[in-house]
Amino acid sequence: MKTDMHLPPSLKKYKRKMAVILPKDAGAIIAYADINKESIVVEIGGGTGFLTHYLAGIAKKVTTYEVREDAFKILSKNTSHYSNLTLKNEDGKFFSEREVDAVVVDVPNSHEFVERSHSALVKGGSFVAYIPSTEQLKDTYIAADSLFREIFSISLPYYDVIVRKKGTRPANFSLMHTAYLLFARK
Amino acid sequence: MKTDMHLPPSLKKYKRKMAVILPKDAGAIIAYADINKESIVVEIGGGTGFLTHYLAGIAKKVTTYEVREDAFKILSKNTSHYSNLTLKNEDGKFFSEREVDAVVVDVPNSHEFVERSHSALVKGGSFVAYIPSTEQLKDTYIAADSLFREIFSISLPYYDVIVRKKGTRPANFSLMHTAYLLFARK
Amino acid sequence: MKTDMHLPPSLKKYKRKMAVILPKDAGAIIAYADINKESIVVEIGGGTGFLTHYLAGIAKKVTTYEVREDAFKILSKNTSHYSNLTLKNEDGKFFSEREVDAVVVDVPNSHEFVERSHSALVKGGSFVAYIPSTEQLKDTYIAADSLFREIFSISLPYYDVIVRKKGTRPANFSLMHTAYLLFARK
Amino acid sequence: MKTDMHLPPSLKKYKRKMAVILPKDAGAIIAYADINKESIVVEIGGGTGFLTHYLAGIAKKVTTYEVREDAFKILSKNTSHYSNLTLKNEDGKFFSEREVDAVVVDVPNSHEFVERSHSALVKGGSFVAYIPSTEQLKDTYIAADSLFREIFSISLPYYDVIVRKKGTRPANFSLMHTAYLLFARK
Repeated sequence: MKTDMHLPPSLKKYKRKMAVILPKDAGAIIAYADINKESIVVEIGGGTGFLTHYLAGIAKKVTTYEVREDAFKILSKNTSHYSNLTLKNEDGKFFSEREVDAVVVDVPNSHEFVERSHSALVKGGSFVAYIPSTEQLKDTYIAADSLFREIFSISLPYYDVIVRKKGTRPANFSLMHTAYLLFARK
Repeated sequence: MKTDMHLPPSLKKYKRKMAVILPKDAGAIIAYADINKESIVVEIGGGTGFLTHYLAGIAKKVTTYEVREDAFKILSKNTSHYSNLTLKNEDGKFFSEREVDAVVVDVPNSHEFVERSHSALVKGGSFVAYIPSTEQLKDTYIAADSLFREIFSISLPYYDVIVRKKGTRPANFSLMHTAYLLFARK
Repeated sequence: MKTDMHLPPSLKKYKRKMAVILPKDAGAIIAYADINKESIVVEIGGGTGFLTHYLAGIAKKVTTYEVREDAFKILSKNTSHYSNLTLKNEDGKFFSEREVDAVVVDVPNSHEFVERSHSALVKGGSFVAYIPSTEQLKDTYIAADSLFREIFSISLPYYDVIVRKKGTRPANFSLMHTAYLLFARK
Repeated sequence: MKTDMHLPPSLKKYKRKMAVILPKDAGAIIAYADINKESIVVEIGGGTGFLTHYLAGIAKKVTTYEVREDAFKILSKNTSHYSNLTLKNEDGKFFSEREVDAVVVDVPNSHEFVERSHSALVKGGSFVAYIPSTEQLKDTYIAADSLFREIFSISLPYYDVIVRKKGTRPANFSLMHTAYLLFARK
């Protein structure tokens, strides 16, 4: 399905190879986790950098882990203009950053990052997971349930609205699902 | 309908009186308009400051117009901690800011702001309108169509996913519609 | 976009040429208009018969109008096995059937059928319109508003749920919009 | 949440006590399973008869099982006007009907009905399950996967469209989820 994803010009220049996090989800991550100019952020599973672009453009300091070599090469090129961004070609399982405001994970085993993220976060900080399948959502939710103060999981379907002089209506085919977003506040 | 909107702690403290822009839409505005630490932003119709919170927390410099006195009072209190934010108790129709990266309007007559916004924006900058009704969307879309290089309008339905040991499923009632988001890039 | 529409075997045999009414909408028309074995139904704009299939398979007596010759030929072939179905190669604007339980229209000028439908319906009967655009919905809604006892308009987005041993999740791209369904009860 | 479910007048008279199957889902069950005047149908878990109303109003012969005594009493009263309907106050696990065109189950253990339903169905017949949770969907899907020729599971979110002279737009809060519908064709 070819659909215009309405990427901003900056992201249109990014090389891509694998599935990316789209602006609708990147924006929700930033807004619900309240990431701003003062934020210290750790990202696990940076892929080719579509979310990294937003995190580094907005936050004070970002550390991004990406274990796959092919992704890491593209990620490095795509985001080379950010001076507040540290990239690490590791899986991030034992990330050592502390006093962070948000940890954002986009990996298949997100539930394994819950405990370490909880330790790394400041009070009020957010653990965020980008999760395609319902099973993984459940595993991660249950792992976070006893540790965090507030947890919720949401999904943001998306549709284009076609405006023509003849008629206005939602586009026929739209993006019902990319991933669930799980947020846990410490 | 009482629903937990999952506001971040910072916004939970905000006083509110009228309809607000929720994080899902604030995040989309930031992501599709690519607003970041370097951005100069004008906001027309600040309301009680729910979007202003994000804009001022992320962008370099924000000027927010709000003509209603009751809203302006609350807006001023809610956002008093932002030093990069200028508030004006005016309707903004003749806003004089120039070389801005984004103009975001949340007013009933958004189509009347298209031309001035186009003049005020840098090349590549974005005009964004938050629009509840289909008729207003059409008016604004048509007004922007001849001036801007790229236009699109989207909507982001939202649903909570309930995770319980017994069963995982979307919440029954969800937020199908808040507003259409129209983006026009110069 | 190639998507399996999960048509029942009977409809898979139908020839098609133009846009069809899908089972999700046909089912909603039948359920909200409460069409059953006792119903007398008039259909305006039969197309190639995808809705006609359901109406004739369920109701007591169906009269279907289709003015386009190419569609009428296909419609005639597709539905030749129904003995309770009368097909008319006319636009239906002056349909003369009376004491009918439901009038279902799928034509671009549905608002022009409101008054005659109201006259033709029994008390408690339903006028139903299948309407792709918001403008047409509004025109038809306003035309029906003063005549009918109860009016509502709905839309049924649709998504496939992918079940795999590895993971269960909504399909990425789904059918957000086919048409609005307007129901007016006399 | 009080929302007008737009029930037809016939169903508004029905007494209710527990969750019911709404017209949007009843219609989809009928349309995708292609239930019509010639159909022989078995329903497991009739509840208070909201789906039974449609099945008995449309099909040739319906047998409905409901094991709960309180539901059965209401079901009996609500549907007493159907002469083609047989009600049984049993759980239906060992239903003995054969050569049926459709088996529709609305029970928490729907996966346990897959095998018997397969045996009971004619070639081309449909097993249908109304399933609130993702876990139950998966269990039932997997149980049906090896036996049936074609399986799919869908969901139909629903929204009202508000039409006012001032503005047309989707209702804010809508019914995102009632249940998944699983269809398996023999």
